[in-house]
Amino acid sequence: MGIKTYNLKWMNRITKLFRIKYPVVQGGMVWCSGWRLASAVSNNGGLGLLGAGSMHPDVLKEHINKMKIATTKPWGVNVPLLYPEIDKLMDTIIDEGVKTVFTSAGNPAKWTDTLKKHNITVIHVIANGKFARKSEDAGVDAIVAEGFEAGGHNGREETTTMTLIPHIRSITNLPLIVAGGIGSGSAMLAAMALGADGVQIGSLFAASAESSAHENFKKRVVKTEEGETLLSLKKLSPVRLIKNSLFDRLHKAETSGVSAIKLQKILGRGRAKKGIFEGDLEEGELEIGQVSSTINSIRPVSEIMEILITDYRKVKQEIETNSAFNF
Amino acid sequence: MGIKTYNLKWMNRITKLFRIKYPVVQGGMVWCSGWRLASAVSNNGGLGLLGAGSMHPDVLKEHINKMKIATTKPWGVNVPLLYPEIDKLMDTIIDEGVKTVFTSAGNPAKWTDTLKKHNITVIHVIANGKFARKSEDAGVDAIVAEGFEAGGHNGREETTTMTLIPHIRSITNLPLIVAGGIGSGSAMLAAMALGADGVQIGSLFAASAESSAHENFKKRVVKTEEGETLLSLKKLSPVRLIKNSLFDRLHKAETSGVSAIKLQKILGRGRAKKGIFEGDLEEGELEIGQVSSTINSIRPVSEIMEILITDYRKVKQEIETNSAFNF
Repeated sequence: MGIKTYNLKWMNRITKLFRIKYPVVQGGMVWCSGWRLASAVSNNGGLGLLGAGSMHPDVLKEHINKMKIATTKPWGVNVPLLYPEIDKLMDTIIDEGVKTVFTSAGNPAKWTDTLKKHNITVIHVIANGKFARKSEDAGVDAIVAEGFEAGGHNGREETTTMTLIPHIRSITNLPLIVAGGIGSGSAMLAAMALGADGVQIGSLFAASAESSAHENFKKRVVKTEEGETLLSLKKLSPVRLIKNSLFDRLHKAETSGVSAIKLQKILGRGRAKKGIFEGDLEEGELEIGQVSSTINSIRPVSEIMEILITDYRKVKQEIETNSAFNF
Repeated sequence: MGIKTYNLKWMNRITKLFRIKYPVVQGGMVWCSGWRLASAVSNNGGLGLLGAGSMHPDVLKEHINKMKIATTKPWGVNVPLLYPEIDKLMDTIIDEGVKTVFTSAGNPAKWTDTLKKHNITVIHVIANGKFARKSEDAGVDAIVAEGFEAGGHNGREETTTMTLIPHIRSITNLPLIVAGGIGSGSAMLAAMALGADGVQIGSLFAASAESSAHENFKKRVVKTEEGETLLSLKKLSPVRLIKNSLFDRLHKAETSGVSAIKLQKILGRGRAKKGIFEGDLEEGELEIGQVSSTINSIRPVSEIMEILITDYRKVKQEIETNSAFNF
């Protein structure tokens, strides 16, 4: 008696929520995470996400259908809530019977109810305590807390993963997935020691063999050294980019005091596609996390997952057995 | 046979290097870390550091002499290498028989040899791989790697603790102390999981009862919420500050494109003393780490250390026994 309660209490809440083997979610990333990447992650024990941010509703539908063929394992879709055709996109997601949706870049109150009415598991991405509370109020099933070191769009508070996790953990008891700076099994264990239930990994998968990013972009990620990414465009919406010609122009303009409107003009449109999908390394936006400096090769997802979990187990054992951790 | 080697191999390298109970170093902080704070940390099992950065050589001498009376445990002095009277300061340190010196903000090659000739243990503070290598070449005994979330002066790479630790660990095998974002035992364990041998803690001790900071400053630290500190003055030398009137003026000037010279004029001199030591919360520089948002009261060092180590042990046990960590 009571054994089941005990087991439930101690199970990992992320593996349980998604019915996956490892508490590893692949970040939904524009121009990187189509059905090839997402299904590879799901087939290797994690949770793959289609990144709808760079897909028209009909393209998303196509990817969803390919996902259904490519994997029998659980998977989901990431939707930035500022998406221009959001209603059509959500219709597609509901009509196609998607079971898990990660929402980001917007108000969690807007879509959570609708999605949950269709029995969809909803997870919202946040970067501060205020939105953690909003997410809990909206009734989401879990949150992703994203630290300053993460690639792409990010919060204005600049709170790093190390500081963000205990802060969010003190605010909500929701299952907590952590993103930003997770590039190894040891970082995964560190995040969990800080109070996370699981991790979301972007950069490692953006540079994987199955990522739909351009080969130029993947090679550039592999070459990235420390200090080569910077959170930029703070006058518009902060985004972490690899430094290149476009970055230099934007950074120079921003620090010389130009307005947001002028900055937007210099930026123009379609820069992420240009950089990540078309491989223009000088004129595109190269969105990637700080942890890219530790990525040394383009690997298939199966290898990435194996290295990750092996490293996690090794570090866990070291904490348990190495007396350097005892005092 | 071989047993001793085994034991040596597995002992914690930081407790061994300094002959202390816990691998916890108190950051040497301007206007906070005089003999009262440093001796309290040493008497409670950590390594206390006098922060020479805000002391004239004769004042340092006075603090050293008080330290000798206040504790029989190991302790050290932190010296920013850009200190204007550096020769006099180092003479004082050598003459007074100080056994451990942490150098920061400068080239480790400059003083390491001299100090080591006097049998002084030398540790250099770095924020990137380049200076980790330089420190190893200079022959230091250990390094402190400081992440973006740390308070006060910081690196230009903006590398967070989570990303910095594995990076530095991949570069050097030196004993590694990690600073930035360490405000709890779980953060301490996370840092060690990532490859650190020990931690350096600033913010928690800056707001402690024994800190020589003004009561106004300590209360302000306790009130600090997420996003209230920001890495600023990037056109001069990046420093993490709590937002106040001075910060607003500087930030407005910086983002509107003023030159470094004009920025220096607005900043003026003695701002850290004004803010931290004199308690002027609007016109002083309030240097503190991001983790200040999790500090909720001014406590004596004995309590801080007890909470820290108890939390560390609790999280360590959880990793070992909670099946949520098993997969």
